Amino acid sequence: MKKGRILSGSRPTGRQHLGHLKGILENWASLQDDYECIFEVADWHALTTKYNRTYELKDNIRETVIDWISAGIDPKKSIIFVQSDVKEHAELALLFSMIVSVGRLERNPTYKEQVQELNLGDSVSLGLLSYPVLQAADILIYKADTVPIGEDQLPHLELTREIARRFNYLYGKVKENGDGEEREEILPIPEPLLAKVPRLPGTDRRKMSKSYGNAIYLADSPDEILKKVKSMITDPQRVRLKDPGDPEVCTVYDYHKIFSHPELVEECSTKCREAGIGCAKCKQYLVEMLVEYLAPIQKKRKELEAQPEIIDEILENGKEKATKIARQTMEEIREAMHLKR
Amino acid sequence: MKKGRILSGSRPTGRQHLGHLKGILENWASLQDDYECIFEVADWHALTTKYNRTYELKDNIRETVIDWISAGIDPKKSIIFVQSDVKEHAELALLFSMIVSVGRLERNPTYKEQVQELNLGDSVSLGLLSYPVLQAADILIYKADTVPIGEDQLPHLELTREIARRFNYLYGKVKENGDGEEREEILPIPEPLLAKVPRLPGTDRRKMSKSYGNAIYLADSPDEILKKVKSMITDPQRVRLKDPGDPEVCTVYDYHKIFSHPELVEECSTKCREAGIGCAKCKQYLVEMLVEYLAPIQKKRKELEAQPEIIDEILENGKEKATKIARQTMEEIREAMHLKR
Repeated sequence: MKKGRILSGSRPTGRQHLGHLKGILENWASLQDDYECIFEVADWHALTTKYNRTYELKDNIRETVIDWISAGIDPKKSIIFVQSDVKEHAELALLFSMIVSVGRLERNPTYKEQVQELNLGDSVSLGLLSYPVLQAADILIYKADTVPIGEDQLPHLELTREIARRFNYLYGKVKENGDGEEREEILPIPEPLLAKVPRLPGTDRRKMSKSYGNAIYLADSPDEILKKVKSMITDPQRVRLKDPGDPEVCTVYDYHKIFSHPELVEECSTKCREAGIGCAKCKQYLVEMLVEYLAPIQKKRKELEAQPEIIDEILENGKEKATKIARQTMEEIREAMHLKR
Repeated sequence: MKKGRILSGSRPTGRQHLGHLKGILENWASLQDDYECIFEVADWHALTTKYNRTYELKDNIRETVIDWISAGIDPKKSIIFVQSDVKEHAELALLFSMIVSVGRLERNPTYKEQVQELNLGDSVSLGLLSYPVLQAADILIYKADTVPIGEDQLPHLELTREIARRFNYLYGKVKENGDGEEREEILPIPEPLLAKVPRLPGTDRRKMSKSYGNAIYLADSPDEILKKVKSMITDPQRVRLKDPGDPEVCTVYDYHKIFSHPELVEECSTKCREAGIGCAKCKQYLVEMLVEYLAPIQKKRKELEAQPEIIDEILENGKEKATKIARQTMEEIREAMHLKR
């Protein structure tokens, strides 16, 4: 008996990096035994900012899925599908658009940030404004009761919960109970499952991101990893080898804490403070640890790359399974809204 | 050889009135021989204002279609379908939402009017804001090159044209021609076909509308017509029978001009000015003319009501034909946007 049903997803950004691995993928992988998991490659969401670079989508979807599976997302346990393969999401988003106010969407903090950050002003697209409505459709079309998210995404999930409640209120049948009336719950009110995610900065200490060019990818070769680790910023106060260092301000140490064996983490920390190890050596250790950590993932990736049809089959299979659930929900939704003829 | 393809539609408001007949239906009927016509029952659009009254939809769709066909829309010549039967509209509206700005939609005059008129303020729904984007999808998914509209709808069609141009620019292949480069035209830029529509006020001289209770319905019995015509406002300056009247300020005369034989129109006008005919008599003539005018429409309505399955068949058939065209267009659109996998 599973604890519930999870829907989570992420945009197809192409090859996944360590930020994805630690922030999303390992968490997803760990949930697969306890929950019925549905993982979505959110290609329509990608259009909200990349509508003019759609030529990248096909490859990015494939690379993303290869990395997901290499990192432990198991298509035998979970449904993996591409959002645009299940057209019903668009229909449900349209129906939800009738019961969500523009004001509510404009007050969404993520939206405000994006408009400001991307300097969009008046040119912000309808797709960006209505993004959380499509996201609500993604979740509710599978009647997911659990959504693994970070703290920063709580406002989005709150909107999904509001939409579900409002939908039930407007279209649920009135049922009598002892105390009075209540509404039939057509859509569940999903709960957040907050994941503890370790902080993993990019090689330049900013947020790890493809666009900043500061990411280490799951598929990076030992040489690439070496090059990137070499470029990592260490304690800027430690100028010479014999100066003692402070691991707490060192990117390399941030990585050691996450990827290295506890003894090595301890050793690097202690020796750094005593000036007993140089940054070059410390980086060398990290490279070894990363190469070791990524070895099984890269082995799996090679297997998948050797048989491209496997990914097609997995996504085709995911499409079928997701579609089946989505269609069932849409039948119920159309019935409740009197849209079924 | 037809002149082009027309898409037009209207919300399923239920039984149609004389305003619909003169403003929309007779124009549609007259276009059927020259154009390939597709007529849409816009039930999703109805949700933008009636999301909390969806229980009316089913009956309203049926009554609307019965009146359309009774008024001369011929399912053998034209496609008649229900919007929500062709889910591809929702997908295309979603894709278009990525290339339309919120600012552009907020500047739409119809939107501004509605927000003001319905006193919506902050509570205006996303569905109402994005209404013209769904409308663009309705038109462009059939590659309609001609849209019969009134002057007041020109701003909406202009948005459709902008979306089509932007889509072609973003996703059309670059072709070389003699002078330089041009873009492949994936979607046509539809042209308006302005219809000359006679002004037909409601019985109280306001705009004829179900919600004002001032409408004469195509299905009204002679008794109902008599009652409504009796209530019509005539020249308020004409107090007694022997006062001469002014037909130009008389609702009854507005109707005579549209529904009566030319000799009767002339007679009523002349005698009214000479105080040679009373308003009661003049109304009596109009009732006779209206009953006569509506007789063939009501005969057809009775036939359709006697065989309810006919409407189901017509809409099923329309769904199939519309879906076939819509799917073909979506294939091309997904291909152009690199969303086809």
